[in-house]
Amino acid sequence: MIAYRAPLQDLRFALHDVLNLQGHCAKLPIGDACNREVSDAILDEAARFAEQVLAPLNASGDAEGCHFDASTGEVRTPQGFKQAFAQFAENGWSGLTAAEEDGGQGLPEVLGAVFKELVDSANLSWGNYPLLSHGAVNAIKHHGEAWQQQVFLRPIVEGRWTGTMCLTEPHCGSDLGLLKTRAEPMDDGRFAIFGTKIFITGGDHDLSENIVHLVLARLPDAPAGTRGISMFVVPKYKVSIDGVIGARNSVRAGSIEHKMGIHASATCVMNFDGAEGWLIGAPHKGLAAMFTMMNAARLGVGIQGLGLIERAYQSALSYSRDRLQMRSLSGVKAPDKAADPLIVHPDIRRMLLTCKSFAEGGRLMTLHAASLVDLVEHGDESTRGEADSLLSFLTPIVKGLLTEAACECTYHALQCFGGHGYVREWGMEQLARDARITTIYEGTTQIQALDLLGRKVIQQQGIGFKQFLGMIVDFCSQHAQVAELATFVAPLAQAAQDWQQLTLEIAQRIQRDPEELGAAAVDYLFYSGYVTLAYWWARSVAAADRSDLATRQAKRATAQFYFKRILPRCHAHAGAIRAGAESLMTLDAALFD
Amino acid sequence: MIAYRAPLQDLRFALHDVLNLQGHCAKLPIGDACNREVSDAILDEAARFAEQVLAPLNASGDAEGCHFDASTGEVRTPQGFKQAFAQFAENGWSGLTAAEEDGGQGLPEVLGAVFKELVDSANLSWGNYPLLSHGAVNAIKHHGEAWQQQVFLRPIVEGRWTGTMCLTEPHCGSDLGLLKTRAEPMDDGRFAIFGTKIFITGGDHDLSENIVHLVLARLPDAPAGTRGISMFVVPKYKVSIDGVIGARNSVRAGSIEHKMGIHASATCVMNFDGAEGWLIGAPHKGLAAMFTMMNAARLGVGIQGLGLIERAYQSALSYSRDRLQMRSLSGVKAPDKAADPLIVHPDIRRMLLTCKSFAEGGRLMTLHAASLVDLVEHGDESTRGEADSLLSFLTPIVKGLLTEAACECTYHALQCFGGHGYVREWGMEQLARDARITTIYEGTTQIQALDLLGRKVIQQQGIGFKQFLGMIVDFCSQHAQVAELATFVAPLAQAAQDWQQLTLEIAQRIQRDPEELGAAAVDYLFYSGYVTLAYWWARSVAAADRSDLATRQAKRATAQFYFKRILPRCHAHAGAIRAGAESLMTLDAALFD
Repeated sequence: MIAYRAPLQDLRFALHDVLNLQGHCAKLPIGDACNREVSDAILDEAARFAEQVLAPLNASGDAEGCHFDASTGEVRTPQGFKQAFAQFAENGWSGLTAAEEDGGQGLPEVLGAVFKELVDSANLSWGNYPLLSHGAVNAIKHHGEAWQQQVFLRPIVEGRWTGTMCLTEPHCGSDLGLLKTRAEPMDDGRFAIFGTKIFITGGDHDLSENIVHLVLARLPDAPAGTRGISMFVVPKYKVSIDGVIGARNSVRAGSIEHKMGIHASATCVMNFDGAEGWLIGAPHKGLAAMFTMMNAARLGVGIQGLGLIERAYQSALSYSRDRLQMRSLSGVKAPDKAADPLIVHPDIRRMLLTCKSFAEGGRLMTLHAASLVDLVEHGDESTRGEADSLLSFLTPIVKGLLTEAACECTYHALQCFGGHGYVREWGMEQLARDARITTIYEGTTQIQALDLLGRKVIQQQGIGFKQFLGMIVDFCSQHAQVAELATFVAPLAQAAQDWQQLTLEIAQRIQRDPEELGAAAVDYLFYSGYVTLAYWWARSVAAADRSDLATRQAKRATAQFYFKRILPRCHAHAGAIRAGAESLMTLDAALFD
Repeated sequence: MIAYRAPLQDLRFALHDVLNLQGHCAKLPIGDACNREVSDAILDEAARFAEQVLAPLNASGDAEGCHFDASTGEVRTPQGFKQAFAQFAENGWSGLTAAEEDGGQGLPEVLGAVFKELVDSANLSWGNYPLLSHGAVNAIKHHGEAWQQQVFLRPIVEGRWTGTMCLTEPHCGSDLGLLKTRAEPMDDGRFAIFGTKIFITGGDHDLSENIVHLVLARLPDAPAGTRGISMFVVPKYKVSIDGVIGARNSVRAGSIEHKMGIHASATCVMNFDGAEGWLIGAPHKGLAAMFTMMNAARLGVGIQGLGLIERAYQSALSYSRDRLQMRSLSGVKAPDKAADPLIVHPDIRRMLLTCKSFAEGGRLMTLHAASLVDLVEHGDESTRGEADSLLSFLTPIVKGLLTEAACECTYHALQCFGGHGYVREWGMEQLARDARITTIYEGTTQIQALDLLGRKVIQQQGIGFKQFLGMIVDFCSQHAQVAELATFVAPLAQAAQDWQQLTLEIAQRIQRDPEELGAAAVDYLFYSGYVTLAYWWARSVAAADRSDLATRQAKRATAQFYFKRILPRCHAHAGAIRAGAESLMTLDAALFD
């Protein structure tokens, strides 16, 4: 097992040299209070926590898994998880980006995203426990009544309580319109919830004093489908409206899943047997409220993808430098050794550079998206609206691309190890198993793709798309005269133009045949992701040209690789899209076998 | 868990309608004795064995894994494995394709490949135990002395003994030139073997009376590198030269690996502590001898890929027909149900058709390769040479493409299940975990790619390549006038031409810079694989046009999908190859982090 090291140098490059963190903070209430010294201190402390507290629990947590006591419905997390969570809460990580009025530190989401990347690289399963607390805070803050905010926010922000999202049921995952869980009004404004939810991350555990479930259910008079869904807050232990914890509520884990990976993350079947809760937001408007939480969670899962890519890359790089196997094709490189290190071989480099380009480019994608979250929350009126539409557009791209890339990169990184990658010892196979959930939960890649193409591009007339294209065009015209950037700026400008053209074509196709939407969506998601990453790589090179020689060389060579070997994948995706729905829809369902 | 069903209909289509099994058998000693009745009976019996005996042990074997007794070095396989192996031996499957003089049935390798596909679909781990026996028989038959053949062949053919290949050592996997295991001559013609081998599949188990290890080691006077490697046969229980089993030999499993998948396949560390064995073949010529075994094993692993693709496809298809989720984009398809089945959605179809096109096309690739093995063994003088060079060329393509496709297809199939794919219950995550080893063992994809491009195309002046291109050109010119085939024949002819052109370009590049070989190899392997599969899809459509309506429609629609959505991946691979070595080699190894 190769020890995890937080990529502090690249994080600082991204935050300061590319994204201008200080300029960003100036637009937020925190302003100068979040200066370089503060952010450096946070990075160092976050690195220490991830490297020293969480990373050592990753393999052991995987091997041990969670324990379920069927007689009580209680889940016990693997050894060390509880202590790590206590440190996390004590050290204020839990409220890093929460409002000061709720007990948080009011720091920007950009730094929250940095912390999350480090956590997910170190220990993805552990990172799932606080993940949904963040979303629960958002949902209650935006949709809850004043007393609900009073009661629920501070304990969650302080890490004494945690949150969950209860959406999926046995017969419905992607299609929430089918959900059956029902809420019956009680006479005191509370509701009794009945139903079964599955795949509930952190549905039960031993890390916090209380667990606050945000549950989608139907009121008695609810219309069918997605317009009849309301959101309820249902705590594990009942809470009075003045915040006092009371008796055990009738919500219990019925079992935990045995999964391919994230063994240390408890995935629960949750039985609501008349559990008492309160309505959050307006009746029948639960899905919209849940999306406040969901979007944050989707970005969070995108960051999980990034964290896994970075971890896989580091390990494969280290192994490829140490492991001696065969001689270089262009002559002996390490004459004093029995063979050359793996890293001399071109295909090992191809796999490493694929990981590196996704990790460093993906880091900018996630940090930029997080900066938009800051602007949506704290920007002035006009900034807020623009940031919101841009963020809506980018969220499915971040989630979709980086989770698919995590599967690809953990694949490559494992391959660098050969047979040693397939055994537990080096930790590579765990990364591959853990990565596999990220393209599924919080909306599959297919759902992200339909959200991107159907909702964000077609229904919303591409507001966010146009904004992002504008950013690319601006960058390209600002740098059009810089000779050293020509190899990046010209193909980026072309890619942006092709993207726009392809989008128009797809819109026309969809007008003729609605199946074209589903037939194009996933390829369009990848296409969009690759162009987005190309933009961040071009910006990285431009920023690195103001940096030291080593950074300049590394960023240029990696960007070159990206533009020559990854970006051209767009052609294959465009080709698939232009093959149209016919190539998918012709075969009668009865004739597939 | 969805029950496995052997794809008998498609197997019969492949064997008879496309490959003309009867015509093939006519070229072999068995001739008419392997008629349609015989092959149908074998298919039915093989299906019964795979579906009823092996498939039910797949999930339980994965959950239980193998047991290692450190005090004795003995491995116990999961429950039911021993009984299944006994049935396998009793029913003659073990000697299906072995020569009658050695106790086998002398049936063609084509039918052996059918049987192997079914076994691997049903239970990949179990299939690993007999896999290497087959290779051991080949190696001893071709390189062993008469008495060695006398002693070792019949017990292995009859399934009373099994074989292993002992190549890898802790410090060398792909690079066998580094191996250190040594063989010291004893005074009676035997050798004492000292060393440690790792990753030995079936190194110990409880399925057979004896285990015959074929071990690579160095003689005292051996030159360094790959030219100093000899092959030895080292049985677990000593055997006298008249075949009587004696005392325990000093070869023992030191431990078994904890792996990502194939839990029921024992992967052993083997310690040779002066274990007694005999030289097989000439001194220092062990690597060539081992390649007799290795090539058969590589085809076998290609078939493993096929088996996994077929199994994943069947399961995902069944689930996609049953699971109701969301409405079709072009209007309600199942008005009497709460939602439409998944299979109405274009992207689910994309994933299913990807699996289907690899399964059915891949089946023809493997059966064709197996038919070449038959001709190499039993054809007349001229046929033999041609078959041998063609088989050499196709082997890395079959192994490389179908194992990578297995990883891709088990990925898609799992994705069709959403969250249900990630939990154990449905068996999809096991398929994904099991598939992951296939691109590694018996030579990684990188090694297959170097073998294909470096050895088969460049060093051997592309003899096999030209033969295969000739087959494509012949097919295209024979069918050039058939209007209904134009949509397949024209792009296939073009693809073949592009393939040839690309190959010439690469050869020129390599002359300028040897790193171009490594930089192009993996992309070239995929490129070659996709064109090969296009050939088989075009032939399938041509054959199906003489078949019933349902087969015709299904083959046409799937081929259409393949040509429109999979074959165009070649463009991306060609682009990557043309990006050249520079895009991979520029970054200094010290600057990767």
